[in-house]
Amino acid sequence: MSLFFFAGCDTAGEPSTLRDMAEMGKGVTAGKLAINVQKRLTRAQEKVMQKLGKADETRDVAFEEMVSNFNKQMIEGSKLQKDMKSYLLAVKTMHDASRRLQDCLAEMYEPDWFGKEEMDALTEDTDTLWLDYHQNITDKSLNTLDSYLTQFPDIKARIAKRDRKMAEEELGKAQKIFEELNVELQDELPVLFDNRVGVYVNTFQGLAGHQEKFHKEMGKVRKLFRRVLLN
Amino acid sequence: MSLFFFAGCDTAGEPSTLRDMAEMGKGVTAGKLAINVQKRLTRAQEKVMQKLGKADETRDVAFEEMVSNFNKQMIEGSKLQKDMKSYLLAVKTMHDASRRLQDCLAEMYEPDWFGKEEMDALTEDTDTLWLDYHQNITDKSLNTLDSYLTQFPDIKARIAKRDRKMAEEELGKAQKIFEELNVELQDELPVLFDNRVGVYVNTFQGLAGHQEKFHKEMGKVRKLFRRVLLN
Repeated sequence: MSLFFFAGCDTAGEPSTLRDMAEMGKGVTAGKLAINVQKRLTRAQEKVMQKLGKADETRDVAFEEMVSNFNKQMIEGSKLQKDMKSYLLAVKTMHDASRRLQDCLAEMYEPDWFGKEEMDALTEDTDTLWLDYHQNITDKSLNTLDSYLTQFPDIKARIAKRDRKMAEEELGKAQKIFEELNVELQDELPVLFDNRVGVYVNTFQGLAGHQEKFHKEMGKVRKLFRRVLLN
Repeated sequence: MSLFFFAGCDTAGEPSTLRDMAEMGKGVTAGKLAINVQKRLTRAQEKVMQKLGKADETRDVAFEEMVSNFNKQMIEGSKLQKDMKSYLLAVKTMHDASRRLQDCLAEMYEPDWFGKEEMDALTEDTDTLWLDYHQNITDKSLNTLDSYLTQFPDIKARIAKRDRKMAEEELGKAQKIFEELNVELQDELPVLFDNRVGVYVNTFQGLAGHQEKFHKEMGKVRKLFRRVLLN
C-alpha cells in the first residue's frame, strides 16, 4: 500500500510531454488540481487504513518521501542557479576577450585602409549582440529561476517547525499546529515538486531560444566582417 | 628630402586593398620586390646627397625610423598574441560553463521523458563544435601569429649589435660588421614591417571565418535542441 503513496507523491499530475510540463510551469493550476484529486484519494485511503491501524505510519513514510524530494529539488535548483550564474560570467568573459581582440585590429587598422567604417559598425553590432544575449538570459532564465528558488526557505522553515511540533506532540496546542502544518505541507510539497519540471523546461527552452538567436545573428555579423577584410 | 625617406620606409610597396595585403602575408616576394626597387632609389638618392654631405645623417634618421617601426610592430604583435590567447581561454571557459549547464539538465532529465536520446546527441554535437572552434583558432590564427613573432628576437639582437658596432666605428673590423648589419637590416626591416599587414589580415580573416562557421552551426544545433524541449 505504501508504494501507492510514493507513486502518488512522485508522479501525481505529471504530464505526458514536455510541452505540457512547460505549460504547467506557467502556473500551478494543473498541478494543484491533480494534487487535490490525489489528496481526496489519499484521505479515502487513510480512512480505510485507520481501520487497520496503519494510517499514521504510512502517512509518515509518505511525508518523509516528500521531504526527501523537497531537499533533492532544492539542491538541484540551487546548482542550476549557480551554473547559470557561472555561464553568465563566462558570457561576459568571452565578450570582453572578443572585444579586446577586435580593439587590437581597430588600433592596427590605419584610417585610410579599406572598410574602416564598416568594420567599426560591425564591431558595434557584435557588442550589441553580446550585451543583448547576456541581458536576455538574465531577464528570462536567471530571474525565473531566482523567483522559483525564493519559495524554498519558507517551506524549509515550516518543515523544521513541523518536526519540532511532532516531538512535543503530547501537548494540545503543539498537536494543533502540527496538524495544520501537516495539511499545508502535504498540499504544497507535491505541487512544488511537480512544478520543477515546468521551471526546468522553461529555463532551458528560453536559454536555447536565446542561444539560437544569438548564434544565428553572430554568424551573420562575422560573415559580413570577414567580407570587409576580403575586400 | 628626408620626408621622402620616411614615406619610403612606411609605405613602400603597400598595396591598395586588403586582399592584396592578405596575399602579401602568404609570402614576402611582393614586399621584397618593392623594397629592392626602393633600395635602388634610396642609393640613387644617396649618391646625390653624398655630394651635398648629408647622406650619413639622413640614413641614420631613416634607420631610426625603421627601428621605431620595428619596436612598435613587436609590441603590437605581442599584444595581439596575448589577446588571442586570452580569447582562447575565454572560449574554453564558456565551453565549460555551457557544458556544466547542459549536464544540469541531463541530470534532472528522467530516462522516460521525451527526447532524452536526441538531447544527449545534441549535447555531443555542441561539445564538438566548441572543441573544433578552439582547435581551429589555435591551429590557424594563433600558430600563424606565433611563427610570425619568432622572427623578432633575432632581428632585435642584430639591431642591438649594430648599435654597439656603431659606437666603436673607428676600428676597421667593427666598421665592416656595422656596414654588413646595416645593409641586412635595411633590407629586412621594411619587408618585416610591410609583412605585418598580411599577417593581421590573415589572422582576423581566419578568425572571422571560424567564428562565422561556429556561430552558424551552433545556431542550428540550439534550434534543434529547443525543438526537442518543445515536443
